[in-house]
Amino acid sequence: MAILYCSNWGAPDAWQAAFRAEDPALEFRVWPKSGPVEEIDYILAWHHQPGVLRQYPRLKAIFSLGAGVEKLLRDKELPAGVPIVRMVDRALTTCMTEYVVLHVLRYHRRMPELEALQRSAQWVELETPPAWERRVGILGLGVLGSDAAKKLVGLGFQVAGWSNHAKRIAKVKSFTGERGLADILARSEILVCLLPLTAATTGVLNAQRFAQMRRGSFLINAARGGHVVESDLLAALDGGQLGHATLDVMAEEPLPPTHPFWRHPRITLTPHNASLTWPPTAAKHIVANIRRHEAGEPMSPLVDLAREY
Amino acid sequence: MAILYCSNWGAPDAWQAAFRAEDPALEFRVWPKSGPVEEIDYILAWHHQPGVLRQYPRLKAIFSLGAGVEKLLRDKELPAGVPIVRMVDRALTTCMTEYVVLHVLRYHRRMPELEALQRSAQWVELETPPAWERRVGILGLGVLGSDAAKKLVGLGFQVAGWSNHAKRIAKVKSFTGERGLADILARSEILVCLLPLTAATTGVLNAQRFAQMRRGSFLINAARGGHVVESDLLAALDGGQLGHATLDVMAEEPLPPTHPFWRHPRITLTPHNASLTWPPTAAKHIVANIRRHEAGEPMSPLVDLAREY
Repeated sequence: MAILYCSNWGAPDAWQAAFRAEDPALEFRVWPKSGPVEEIDYILAWHHQPGVLRQYPRLKAIFSLGAGVEKLLRDKELPAGVPIVRMVDRALTTCMTEYVVLHVLRYHRRMPELEALQRSAQWVELETPPAWERRVGILGLGVLGSDAAKKLVGLGFQVAGWSNHAKRIAKVKSFTGERGLADILARSEILVCLLPLTAATTGVLNAQRFAQMRRGSFLINAARGGHVVESDLLAALDGGQLGHATLDVMAEEPLPPTHPFWRHPRITLTPHNASLTWPPTAAKHIVANIRRHEAGEPMSPLVDLAREY
Repeated sequence: MAILYCSNWGAPDAWQAAFRAEDPALEFRVWPKSGPVEEIDYILAWHHQPGVLRQYPRLKAIFSLGAGVEKLLRDKELPAGVPIVRMVDRALTTCMTEYVVLHVLRYHRRMPELEALQRSAQWVELETPPAWERRVGILGLGVLGSDAAKKLVGLGFQVAGWSNHAKRIAKVKSFTGERGLADILARSEILVCLLPLTAATTGVLNAQRFAQMRRGSFLINAARGGHVVESDLLAALDGGQLGHATLDVMAEEPLPPTHPFWRHPRITLTPHNASLTWPPTAAKHIVANIRRHEAGEPMSPLVDLAREY
């Protein structure tokens, strides 16, 4: 059985090692050196060259190496009927939750203010309430959002989430729909975006939504740059409607050196490193799916083309 | 029954309100307006005037309003035989755990480096391993250290603790004694100090101990300034033996404006606000202890003068 690593980005070495460790019988090939196209059973796709995926006539499934599949789905020549499997990876989930918890705590504990006080050598004993007095909202309660929500509940925060369908997570208030979005924006002191990027969620963080948020509240975007209307965000920060924003993702990455985000006093930037797929654990997820598929069992989680994730 | 708030610091208003809410029958008085000294049954002590506590002949117990009692015990004229009760408060514990988790994550996720990269508008996708590859050590596994350890385990970290007596906490490696101290220093990438300040722990974080730590490791001190030999810490940071330090406490507080800690590029300072006793919950702890004492039951946790905490 042959698996093809198909990417315009980065070296496949860590993936090759991880698959060898997980199942030495799997033949690991690296695009464009695919060998005979009819020998390729599975593809690992990450920033692949559009159009190439349909060149493999016996392809059984495509595995996305990232949690978000919006770039993969932009390929208008995907092979019809070949299932696409999203990445769910223990390391990816753990790291994203670390990121969310870190930046929620950073705002909760007023770190931007404390850092400014240190720079001017001022001792001011800023007080912060216990976590149970703080309302955190999470847009998107998939695998990543749900895990972050649970860990924030574990630290004592009042957590709410917004998702397409109502979710039942202990101590997490569930909101859905347009009315639910307005409600979660109005209640949250710290708002975290972990939505998939689809036609419906592109630009969801815009001037109208910022106006629905609490004055001076905080935004953490660890999803995709396309969720944010960047000029609206700058206006909301400059006008004080938002207190501060932490962005791991931007419309253009790497962020151009002249972009106003870099030196904005109310923006914390990270270079799209909130969470990376970790080959040793991710290979387990993929090999387990391959075994299920070969045994006639369903793979998971499958991309639904209609909902775009 | 009368309770006396006895402090040189701050206003008693929040405490008065909290006690009124918890038990309106308790008479709340504020030193130095004690009224007849024989009417005082209990004292709330926080930065009290040394010598005053023994002026109350029918005193049944002294309640410390802070978790640390080293200042209280420096009073050489404490009334003999009057039990002293330490503060254990859900808010105090929650806030300290928030602080520890925040600053452990901050180092784990390389925030000082990322902040420097942002200042120079450089996009460098720093990688960090998942939490389960990171070793965190906690000096002190009392109420605060144990809670922080559990929450760090919940986020996936490899956690170890060092304490006077071996502790059993799920997934937390327990170290004791001199050999145990050397071992935990050698293994930890991030070290957190939550020890009580006693004769035995004063200056415990010194050049010899820093030399036993992993090169480039991180220190978080949320206990007392007296645990750290400040000149040794500066030397360890300047020589690269320690990568960075976060200090909530210092030998002199407020830290003098000319102190080198303020502008040291490898020090993050917070103004002794890691955790504050929260009157609404702390009053519950004290009133519960008063009720136990009046019913002839033991109070908890009692200060042991021999061990100094």
